[in-house]
Amino acid sequence: MSRRILWINPVGSDAYNAAIGEALRPECLPDTRVDVCSLPDLPVNHLEFNAYEMVTAGATMGVIRWGEQQQYDAAVIGCFYDPALRGAREISGSMAVTAPAEACLHIATTLGERVSILVGRDKWIPEMHENVVKYGFQDKLASFRVLRMTVNEFQQDPQCTEDRILDEARRAVDEDGADVIVLGCTIEFGFYRTVQQEIGVPVIDAIVAPMRYAELLADLRARHGWGTSRAVGYGRPDQDELDAFVPIVTPMIDLDPRP
Amino acid sequence: MSRRILWINPVGSDAYNAAIGEALRPECLPDTRVDVCSLPDLPVNHLEFNAYEMVTAGATMGVIRWGEQQQYDAAVIGCFYDPALRGAREISGSMAVTAPAEACLHIATTLGERVSILVGRDKWIPEMHENVVKYGFQDKLASFRVLRMTVNEFQQDPQCTEDRILDEARRAVDEDGADVIVLGCTIEFGFYRTVQQEIGVPVIDAIVAPMRYAELLADLRARHGWGTSRAVGYGRPDQDELDAFVPIVTPMIDLDPRP
Amino acid sequence: MSRRILWINPVGSDAYNAAIGEALRPECLPDTRVDVCSLPDLPVNHLEFNAYEMVTAGATMGVIRWGEQQQYDAAVIGCFYDPALRGAREISGSMAVTAPAEACLHIATTLGERVSILVGRDKWIPEMHENVVKYGFQDKLASFRVLRMTVNEFQQDPQCTEDRILDEARRAVDEDGADVIVLGCTIEFGFYRTVQQEIGVPVIDAIVAPMRYAELLADLRARHGWGTSRAVGYGRPDQDELDAFVPIVTPMIDLDPRP
Amino acid sequence: MSRRILWINPVGSDAYNAAIGEALRPECLPDTRVDVCSLPDLPVNHLEFNAYEMVTAGATMGVIRWGEQQQYDAAVIGCFYDPALRGAREISGSMAVTAPAEACLHIATTLGERVSILVGRDKWIPEMHENVVKYGFQDKLASFRVLRMTVNEFQQDPQCTEDRILDEARRAVDEDGADVIVLGCTIEFGFYRTVQQEIGVPVIDAIVAPMRYAELLADLRARHGWGTSRAVGYGRPDQDELDAFVPIVTPMIDLDPRP
Amino acid sequence: MSRRILWINPVGSDAYNAAIGEALRPECLPDTRVDVCSLPDLPVNHLEFNAYEMVTAGATMGVIRWGEQQQYDAAVIGCFYDPALRGAREISGSMAVTAPAEACLHIATTLGERVSILVGRDKWIPEMHENVVKYGFQDKLASFRVLRMTVNEFQQDPQCTEDRILDEARRAVDEDGADVIVLGCTIEFGFYRTVQQEIGVPVIDAIVAPMRYAELLADLRARHGWGTSRAVGYGRPDQDELDAFVPIVTPMIDLDPRP
Amino acid sequence: MSRRILWINPVGSDAYNAAIGEALRPECLPDTRVDVCSLPDLPVNHLEFNAYEMVTAGATMGVIRWGEQQQYDAAVIGCFYDPALRGAREISGSMAVTAPAEACLHIATTLGERVSILVGRDKWIPEMHENVVKYGFQDKLASFRVLRMTVNEFQQDPQCTEDRILDEARRAVDEDGADVIVLGCTIEFGFYRTVQQEIGVPVIDAIVAPMRYAELLADLRARHGWGTSRAVGYGRPDQDELDAFVPIVTPMIDLDPRP
Repeated sequence: MSRRILWINPVGSDAYNAAIGEALRPECLPDTRVDVCSLPDLPVNHLEFNAYEMVTAGATMGVIRWGEQQQYDAAVIGCFYDPALRGAREISGSMAVTAPAEACLHIATTLGERVSILVGRDKWIPEMHENVVKYGFQDKLASFRVLRMTVNEFQQDPQCTEDRILDEARRAVDEDGADVIVLGCTIEFGFYRTVQQEIGVPVIDAIVAPMRYAELLADLRARHGWGTSRAVGYGRPDQDELDAFVPIVTPMIDLDPRP
Repeated sequence: MSRRILWINPVGSDAYNAAIGEALRPECLPDTRVDVCSLPDLPVNHLEFNAYEMVTAGATMGVIRWGEQQQYDAAVIGCFYDPALRGAREISGSMAVTAPAEACLHIATTLGERVSILVGRDKWIPEMHENVVKYGFQDKLASFRVLRMTVNEFQQDPQCTEDRILDEARRAVDEDGADVIVLGCTIEFGFYRTVQQEIGVPVIDAIVAPMRYAELLADLRARHGWGTSRAVGYGRPDQDELDAFVPIVTPMIDLDPRP
Repeated sequence: MSRRILWINPVGSDAYNAAIGEALRPECLPDTRVDVCSLPDLPVNHLEFNAYEMVTAGATMGVIRWGEQQQYDAAVIGCFYDPALRGAREISGSMAVTAPAEACLHIATTLGERVSILVGRDKWIPEMHENVVKYGFQDKLASFRVLRMTVNEFQQDPQCTEDRILDEARRAVDEDGADVIVLGCTIEFGFYRTVQQEIGVPVIDAIVAPMRYAELLADLRARHGWGTSRAVGYGRPDQDELDAFVPIVTPMIDLDPRP
Repeated sequence: MSRRILWINPVGSDAYNAAIGEALRPECLPDTRVDVCSLPDLPVNHLEFNAYEMVTAGATMGVIRWGEQQQYDAAVIGCFYDPALRGAREISGSMAVTAPAEACLHIATTLGERVSILVGRDKWIPEMHENVVKYGFQDKLASFRVLRMTVNEFQQDPQCTEDRILDEARRAVDEDGADVIVLGCTIEFGFYRTVQQEIGVPVIDAIVAPMRYAELLADLRARHGWGTSRAVGYGRPDQDELDAFVPIVTPMIDLDPRP
Repeated sequence: MSRRILWINPVGSDAYNAAIGEALRPECLPDTRVDVCSLPDLPVNHLEFNAYEMVTAGATMGVIRWGEQQQYDAAVIGCFYDPALRGAREISGSMAVTAPAEACLHIATTLGERVSILVGRDKWIPEMHENVVKYGFQDKLASFRVLRMTVNEFQQDPQCTEDRILDEARRAVDEDGADVIVLGCTIEFGFYRTVQQEIGVPVIDAIVAPMRYAELLADLRARHGWGTSRAVGYGRPDQDELDAFVPIVTPMIDLDPRP
Repeated sequence: MSRRILWINPVGSDAYNAAIGEALRPECLPDTRVDVCSLPDLPVNHLEFNAYEMVTAGATMGVIRWGEQQQYDAAVIGCFYDPALRGAREISGSMAVTAPAEACLHIATTLGERVSILVGRDKWIPEMHENVVKYGFQDKLASFRVLRMTVNEFQQDPQCTEDRILDEARRAVDEDGADVIVLGCTIEFGFYRTVQQEIGVPVIDAIVAPMRYAELLADLRARHGWGTSRAVGYGRPDQDELDAFVPIVTPMIDLDPRP
C-alpha cells in the first residue's frame, strides 16, 4: 500500500526543495514517495507577511490542481501559516491535503496537554494564533516563544539556530509549563532530534509531522474511505467553473530519486 | 474634510461596478467620493469558494497598493468573506481598509445584542463563522439563515430576492431571537430599506455599512491619527521587498461622476 | 446633515463639564453641536465604586429622558464603566446612546488586534473586564495596566499624568504585545495626542472616541434607519408606565457656544 | 448560632412583603429570623426593564447600608436580575449579600449539569443571560423558557401560573435536556413543590434558594471568617466618602413576628 | 433537623481519619455528626497520580453504596481532584455527594471574583484545571500556585507548611490579583485561620468548605426535595445490575464520638 | 517496522474480544499485530454508567502495566468514554496509549469542520461532552444524536442497528450540518462502511479510528522519539511506589492468530 505525497513549498523559490526532500524522505514510511515542489514565476521567497501569502495563494491553488491531476495521494502546503488550506481542500478531489500547524497541533496535543510554539518573529503570532483557535487548541497553548530570526536566517548558521531553539524550548518547559514543543516554521527543519534529546520533551518538527499526518490521511482514505467531507465547508465547485477560474499550474519540482 | 474611498469588488468582472457605485454614492456623507473597481485579467466572477478567493487575492493586494499610491483615504474589500483583510492592512500605508463582515458586525452589535446573517448558501457559513469568531462576535450570533440563492442570482429577479430576504429575516426575528439582521453578501444590495420597513428591526446592508465605516476610519485617521497599528499583526514589510513581491495592479474602475 | 449630541457626565458635579466641552468640540465633525451636562442634586463626584454608579443611575435615566425630549440625535454616558447603558437604550426613543468602553473597543479592535486599557486603580478592573467580555472583546485584550491614580487626580498635575500614561502605554506595547492603547477613564482626556506621537501606536481617547462613534450612530439612524433595535433586550416600556416610573431630570449643562 | 436575614424587594411597593415573609420563614433554618422590606418613596413596582432597576438602585444601596447598620447577618436583593449586587457588596461591611440568580445557579449546578430558567418574557433573557455568563454557568444552561406572563401576573391566578410553569418545565426536561429547573423570578414563589413533584426533577425556587444560600454565607462568615473579599473588585469606599455619597435609607418593612 | 455526614478519605490508609474528624467536628453545625472513613485493603496512601485515583475508585464506589445503605444524609469524597464524583452521584440514592474542589470553588466565587488555588506540585495542575473548567470557573481563576510539597509532607512540619502557604497566598494576592485563596488539598487542613488572619482575604479550607456545603446539600434535600437530579447525566442504574456490578464496601471508620 | 498493539475492552467480559479482533485486523497496516483483551474477575459487562467505569478502572491500570511489560508498542482503551486515559498515560512507559473519542475526534476534525456523534442513550452525552470540551473540539460539535439502544443491543440485530445509525446519520447531515459522523461506541463496529456509502460523508468507526491512530502514535515514537511527554500532567510515578500501588493484571486475551 504505497503512497505518493507532494510537499508544496508555497513560495516562488526552489531554494529549499532539495534540502526538504532530503530531510523528509528518511523520516517517512518506507513505501512513501515524496516529491517537493515550489511555485513557478513568483519572486516571493518567504511568507512572513500575510500579503505575501495572498500573492502566492493563486499559484498554490493551481499546484493543488496539478497534484490532484498527477494522482498524488496527499499534499502538504508547507508553511506554518497553513495558507489556503480551505481552498485547497475544496478542489483537491480525492487527494488528501494537510498543513504544518494543523498536523503538528493534532499530534502535539495527543502527546501532552500544553504546547509551546517557537516562531521567528512577533509578527507571526497573531495569524498563527488565529489558526490555533480555529483548530480548537486555544486552551492547549502554553505560549508562543520568539526566536528573533527571519525565515531565511534559520538555515544560514545552523548552530546558532539550534542554540536559540534550545534556549527558548527550555524556557517554554521551565517557565510556561509546556509539555510539548512545536517548531513553528517549516524552515526550522533539521533541529528537532538534538533539541528533543537535550530537553527531554517531544519537539515536533514542522516538516516531519505534517508529512506523517499526510501519510495517515492518505491511508485513511485509501483503506476506509475517510476523505475530505464534501458536505458543507469543503464543498467542491462545479468542474467547468473550476477549470475556468483556477488554472492548473505546473510547479518547480524535486522528484524523489528512489525507485 | 472630504474623503475619497475605493470600493474594490475583488473579482475579475466589472459587472457590478456601476450599480454598486450608483447604490453607494447617495448613502454616503456629502463630501465623500466613491470609486468602484474590480480586478483586471481574471475570469473569476464570484467568490463563493475559498479557492476563488485565493486565486484573486494576489490581484487584490496589487489594487490595494494602487489605491494607496492614488492616495485614497480608505478602501473596502467588497466581499462578505472579508478576503485578504490582514494582508491588505499590512501594505495599505496610511489608507484605512475595512470589509463588509467586520463593519456590519461592529455596527449591528451596537444596535442590538443578537444578530442574524442572511447568506446565499450553506457552503458560505463555515468560513463566515470563522470571521464572526475572529472578530469576537460569536456570542452575539443569533443564527445564519440561508436564502438558497447564489451570488449571481441576487440581482436577477429582485422581487424574488426581496421576498426571500423578507421571509428569512422574519424567521430570524421570530424564531431565532435576532435583534438585527445583516445581509451577508454585498450583492444583496438594494433591499435593506424595504425589508427593514417591513420587519421593524435594523437591516444592515453589506455595501452601505462598510462604506460608512470606511468613512469613519478615514476621518479617525485624518483628525486623530488613529490609523492601523503597525505594532504586531499588521506590521508592514520592508518597502523594497514589498515592491519586489507585490506588484501594483491597476483595476477596472467606475469613477465617481460627481464634481 | 448637522447633529446635536449630549455628553452626560454621570456624576453630581459640573467640575469637568466646561473642560470636556472645550476638549470635544474641536475634535468632532464641523456640523456637530456638543452640549455637556451632569446630574443635579447629587453629592457624588466620581464613580470609582459601583455603589456610586448605582446611586447616580436613576438621575442618568432621567437625563436620558430629558435628552430624548430635547431631540438630541445621540447621547454619550461619559464614564468608562458604561453605566446604565442598557437602561438608557430602552428609554432613549430615537436618540442613539453609546458609552466610552463600547465605542473605544469597537474602534480599537478595528485598528489593531490586541488592546491594552490604562486604568487608574486595580479596583476598576473587574467591572471593566465584565464589559470587555460582554462586548465580545475578551480575546482582544492584551492587558489592563494601572496608573495608580484616582479619577480626580488625572487633571491635577497633567505632566505627571502624562508621564504615567506614557510609561504604562510603553510597557503595554513592549511587554504585553498591545497594538492599540485605550485610555480607560474619560478624565484621562487631553493626553492622547502626545502619548500617541511618542509611542507610535494609536492611543484611543475615552471622550473623543465615543463622541465620534455617537456621530456615526446618529448618522446611521438619520440616513439609514439603523437605530437601536426594539426586538428583544432593548425593548421599550409602555409610555404611561415610563412616565410614572422614570421622571425626567433637567441636568446642569454647558451649552455649545457655537452658532 | 441564630442569624437575622434581610430580604429586600428592590421596588417601591410593599405589595409582596408580607407574602414573601410568610412563604420564606417556614423554609429556613429554625433559628433564622427573616425580615422583608422594600424601598420607600418610589413608584416603581416591578423591574422588568433595566431602566427601572437603575431608578431604584440608589435606594437599594441606601437600604443595604441600613441593613448593615442594623447588624443583619445577611441580605438578599430579591430580584432575579441580581440588581446592584456588586455595589451592595462594596458597602455591606460584615453583612453577607447574595441574590436569586447567583444563589439558584450555584445550587442548581450542584444538583444537575444542565439548567433551564423559566422567565416571564423574552425581554428578560438578555440581561439574565449576561449574569449566567458572569457567574460562569454559560455551558450549564439548557435553555431559557418563556411563560409569557409579566411579574405582576404571577400571583393573580395561581392555578394558571402553576399550569404554565408545569408546562414549560416539562418541555425543558423533555426537549432541552434540563436536569434542573430554576424559576427565574422571585414572584414565581409558591409553586416549586407542586411542580417538582409532578415533573420529578429539582425545581429551584427564587426566594427559597437565595435565602438558604444567605444562611450559609452568614454562617461561613460567623464561624470561619469567610466574608466578602475586599482585595480587588469588592473593595470598599472610604467611610467619609461613603457617608457623603450614599445616604442610609430606612425601608418599608415586614418584621419576622416570631420571638 | 440533625444530619449525619460521611467523610471519605479515598485512600487505603486510615492515617488521617482521626485527625480530620477532630478538625472537622468543631467547624460544623452543632447538630451535624461527622464520621470519617477510608478504603479497606488498598496500599495506596495518596492520590497525586491519576492512576492511583483509578485504582481506588472502585472501592470508593463501594463505600458510597455503604454510606447510602447506612442512611447518611451526605458524603464528601475527600480529595481535591474530586475523584469519581459523577459515579458517586449516579449511585448515591437520596444521599447527597460533594467534593472539595466543587464546594470550595462555589463558595470562593461567591466571596470574590478571582481565586487562586495552592497546590502541592505542578503535576496536580492539569487535572485540577480540568475540574475548574468543568465546573464553569475557568474565568474566575487567578492562578494555581505551587507549594513544592507532596501530600504526605503537609502535616509533617506544620510550621514549615504554614510558612509556605502564607508565602504563596501573599503572592497570589499581590501578583495574581486573587480575591480569595483556596487550599488545593484536603491534607492542607489546620492552616486556614492563621493564614487568613495574616493576609486579610478569605482562605477556603479544603475539608471545612465541602463539609459545610454537604450540610447545605443535605438540608436542601431534606427540607425542599432538592436532591441530585436523575434526569440525564446522573441517571441511576437498574438496582439489580448495580448490585451485581458494584459491591458494597465497608470502610475503615472513625466514628463521631459525640452523643 | 512492524508494531504490536493491545486493544483493551475495559470490561469484565470477553464477549466481544474475538469479534473485535476479527474486525480490526483487516483494517490495520499489514505489519500490525492486534491482540484484544478484557479484564479478569469483574462482573461488569458494559460501562454505560460512570460508576461502572470507576469499578473497572483499577483493573485497566493493571492491564496497562501488563501491556507495557509485554512491550506492546501501543494500547487502546476501548470505550468511547476514554476511561482512565490520564492514568494510563502516567504509567504506560514507552507504550503509546490512546482511546476512541480522542482518536475519532482528531481524525474527524481533519476531514470536516463539524462532527456529529451517534450515541446509544441520552445518559452518555454529558460525560462524552466533557471529553469533547477537554480535547478542544467543542466548537466542532454539530450534535449528539441518540440511537435509543444500549451497548449490548448494538450487535444483537445488526440490520436494525444499521437502520437506526443510517437514520440518525442522515439527520445529522441534513438537519445539524454535520460534515462527518462519528460512531460514539466501540460496539457500533461493523457498520461504518455501509452507512458511509449510503450517506456520502465520512463515518468514523470507533474501533478502526483509534487503532489507526495508535499505529501512528507507535510509529511516531519509534521513528521520531515523539512519545507521551512526562513534563507535567502525564508525569510518571516513582517505580517502587507504582509497583506497590498498582498491581499488574493479566487480562483475558484474544491473540492475533497471524504469523
